[in-house]
Amino acid sequence: MASRVNGLKGKVLTLDTMNPCVRRVEYAVRGPIVQRALELEQELRQGVKKPFTEVIRANIGDAHAMGQRPITFFRQVLALCVYPNLLGSPDFPEDAKKRAERILQACGGHSLGAYSISSGIQPFREDVAQYIERRDGGIPADPNNIFLSTGASDAIVTVLKLLVAGEGRARTGVLIPIPQYPLYSAALAELDAVQVDYYLDEERAWALDIAELRRALCQARDRCCPRVLCVINPGNPTGQVQTRECIEAVIRFAFEEGLFLMADEVYQDNVYAEGSQFHSFKKVLMEMGPPYATQQELASFHSVSKGYMGECGFRGGYVEVVNMDAEVQKQMGKLMSVRLCPPVPGQALVDMVERQEVLAELAAKAKLTEQVFNEAPGIRCNPVQGAMYSFPRVQLPLKAVQRAQELGLAPDMFFCLSLLEETGICVVPGSGFGQQEGTYHFRMTILPPMEKLRLLLEKLRHFYAKFTRDYS
Amino acid sequence: MASRVNGLKGKVLTLDTMNPCVRRVEYAVRGPIVQRALELEQELRQGVKKPFTEVIRANIGDAHAMGQRPITFFRQVLALCVYPNLLGSPDFPEDAKKRAERILQACGGHSLGAYSISSGIQPFREDVAQYIERRDGGIPADPNNIFLSTGASDAIVTVLKLLVAGEGRARTGVLIPIPQYPLYSAALAELDAVQVDYYLDEERAWALDIAELRRALCQARDRCCPRVLCVINPGNPTGQVQTRECIEAVIRFAFEEGLFLMADEVYQDNVYAEGSQFHSFKKVLMEMGPPYATQQELASFHSVSKGYMGECGFRGGYVEVVNMDAEVQKQMGKLMSVRLCPPVPGQALVDMVERQEVLAELAAKAKLTEQVFNEAPGIRCNPVQGAMYSFPRVQLPLKAVQRAQELGLAPDMFFCLSLLEETGICVVPGSGFGQQEGTYHFRMTILPPMEKLRLLLEKLRHFYAKFTRDYS
Repeated sequence: MASRVNGLKGKVLTLDTMNPCVRRVEYAVRGPIVQRALELEQELRQGVKKPFTEVIRANIGDAHAMGQRPITFFRQVLALCVYPNLLGSPDFPEDAKKRAERILQACGGHSLGAYSISSGIQPFREDVAQYIERRDGGIPADPNNIFLSTGASDAIVTVLKLLVAGEGRARTGVLIPIPQYPLYSAALAELDAVQVDYYLDEERAWALDIAELRRALCQARDRCCPRVLCVINPGNPTGQVQTRECIEAVIRFAFEEGLFLMADEVYQDNVYAEGSQFHSFKKVLMEMGPPYATQQELASFHSVSKGYMGECGFRGGYVEVVNMDAEVQKQMGKLMSVRLCPPVPGQALVDMVERQEVLAELAAKAKLTEQVFNEAPGIRCNPVQGAMYSFPRVQLPLKAVQRAQELGLAPDMFFCLSLLEETGICVVPGSGFGQQEGTYHFRMTILPPMEKLRLLLEKLRHFYAKFTRDYS
Repeated sequence: MASRVNGLKGKVLTLDTMNPCVRRVEYAVRGPIVQRALELEQELRQGVKKPFTEVIRANIGDAHAMGQRPITFFRQVLALCVYPNLLGSPDFPEDAKKRAERILQACGGHSLGAYSISSGIQPFREDVAQYIERRDGGIPADPNNIFLSTGASDAIVTVLKLLVAGEGRARTGVLIPIPQYPLYSAALAELDAVQVDYYLDEERAWALDIAELRRALCQARDRCCPRVLCVINPGNPTGQVQTRECIEAVIRFAFEEGLFLMADEVYQDNVYAEGSQFHSFKKVLMEMGPPYATQQELASFHSVSKGYMGECGFRGGYVEVVNMDAEVQKQMGKLMSVRLCPPVPGQALVDMVERQEVLAELAAKAKLTEQVFNEAPGIRCNPVQGAMYSFPRVQLPLKAVQRAQELGLAPDMFFCLSLLEETGICVVPGSGFGQQEGTYHFRMTILPPMEKLRLLLEKLRHFYAKFTRDYS
């Protein structure tokens, strides 16, 4: 210890001594490309000359940041809850006041500032149950199976946390789609679980193929104990919407193989392509009847960050568990209680989740995105049926791939960085979500306002053309 | 798999197959006693006759639930941010409007509904840095060392997560005070780290004794690698406020023994006993000069849930890191980014953390609590100098201890459950926080309104007298 007193000590916590699982975590949606975008915004503010005047953040599904207006009713209710003196004001509609009073009644001390019970305020969970029942054509939902959370991410990680156990080859394996939303790979790295990739079929509009599921499962069995199957529907980043037949097949597969089903359905209100329809795993499971309906374990996740609300900043979400072991469910409640409770304003938004609106504009944006990309030689984009992302495939010239390798970058990272530097457009390389070896993609949200999106797509197409010329 | 199809399958996820670390988690503040309190409230609502008419929740530091009024200015600003149409209203003061406009300027799309960067909105972190500088008499604070979080709990778990590594005897050991706030034991169980207990000295008003720290450290060295020292000041549940001398000694100890310091200072604005003063670890560390000031790693945590704000439901908090390895700090940012961002309304409250108010009433409540308890034979209560809890020690008659053992309950759990059943008063047994073998305590908040608190203390004293009579 003498050396320490002589002031020669090193740090206690370094890259070498820190949690190796945390080191392995990667999260592309906010990775280096976003760091660079922040720097560029700084430089622009400082008046540094750039070939563009603003950075367009198409990297993350952040509706309000992209100009989507908050829905007045929700904000009126929240304002009334935050500052109840306003309940006397004539400037607020009666339905908003009624809703606010109902919410405050349910809060400790009638204040959003009180802790709630850890699983979320009971009347809110009852409202969520009603929302689910309406969504699923009357199939009952039990409020006691619903846990509110700090955005869907929190609930997803909590359920994974329960499922991770065992050592070595007995370690829990978790099947996730590739491309995936990187929360999954990040959480699995952090929890030191085994990530088992199954590939979505780009040739069939990112369809989920049971044969591929089976291949992934069988190959995984000699290195881990696969116990969980994660499905993202509508897809993120891939934007496909699963057919009812596909969902039934997935449920049968999970049941036969003894897998706990996790259904990430946060984009359930973002379905707009003609002929596409959202079917919840819960509804399909229940309609399949026993033994599936009575035994297959399922956790379904939803959020106020997406859909027509787009209230990302409030971090509201929930999970509904189906056929979960009663004792485990108690353990889940206990685990959540350690963090006390989800943010109450977010809970209040979840409480209002049932108010539906059409997404006509997103449908138009989705169509436009698909058209413009598919008119560009070298770019191929599947139909965007749901969610809020396109995940086009780009051919990259060999010279670009070589240049990227020289720079120690993934080729699509090199492409996206160049795009950002020259156009200010911030998209996320496909390598951050996973893709078939040798294919290159990027994820771009379709959220910018119509005019801006049109411009953005044109810029992107021209940049790609120039990029391919420069490197061939 | 045939058996599954025949419907004979068991659950994938059971107590036996679930994450054993999660199973080991315990969290007394929301444990069985609180479950029972919820049931009793249900029964009261259903008109079941009880020896009391309401359940008094003295189990958790939930100020608003206990009738503390939210501070108007904060709520006005939040209401304006939530529903900016109000910025035109004459009913809101100019300073609130200015503050709200400033906050909205800093939000993506000028909406609380947009994601923020993961470490928290930059101008907010700058304001927090200013708050810290004022608090510490001008010692500089760098906004880049401040990470906003979902309440302090989130930040505490994140820092612990970085620090946990190694296997077997090389596993990270974390020194925590006993009695402790059970977030620590819960998080360490979840992370499978080694909990190393050091006992606070009840005879010296729960003082932290360096000799005891050294004892705990030395005894721990043969079962783990102690790398972290957690200190809670002001104490939870013990309510003591550390002297500057004590803090200096702790820092010297941590430095010499190569320990990362975690200072839980969420009650820094809850110091009211005469002669008690809050000294931040950061300030003391900096004033000690090199090598401490330049090398000792420290993370200090604060929250909007406590202090004069008491806005628990918004889940706002922050951590300031000092002398943290730059690469590790990047890793911490990455880890936080996986959860996207802390709730933005909570961030806005953190932004306003600097507005101080006196806590005269809490001081009076603390005094009253101490007096009433110490007048009761068999109960002994240390002065409550800070935070919002008393942690009185109770002698339990042998027969009560035996009865508890017959029921398979910790004796103080048995006492608290009996108290709840007969009086409706909900407090938490000391066994949930840790206590010297053979001693019994409970944690009670001093938050109820003065009159209610007086009544509660009287009830409690009478119940204790009766309890001891019944069991002797």
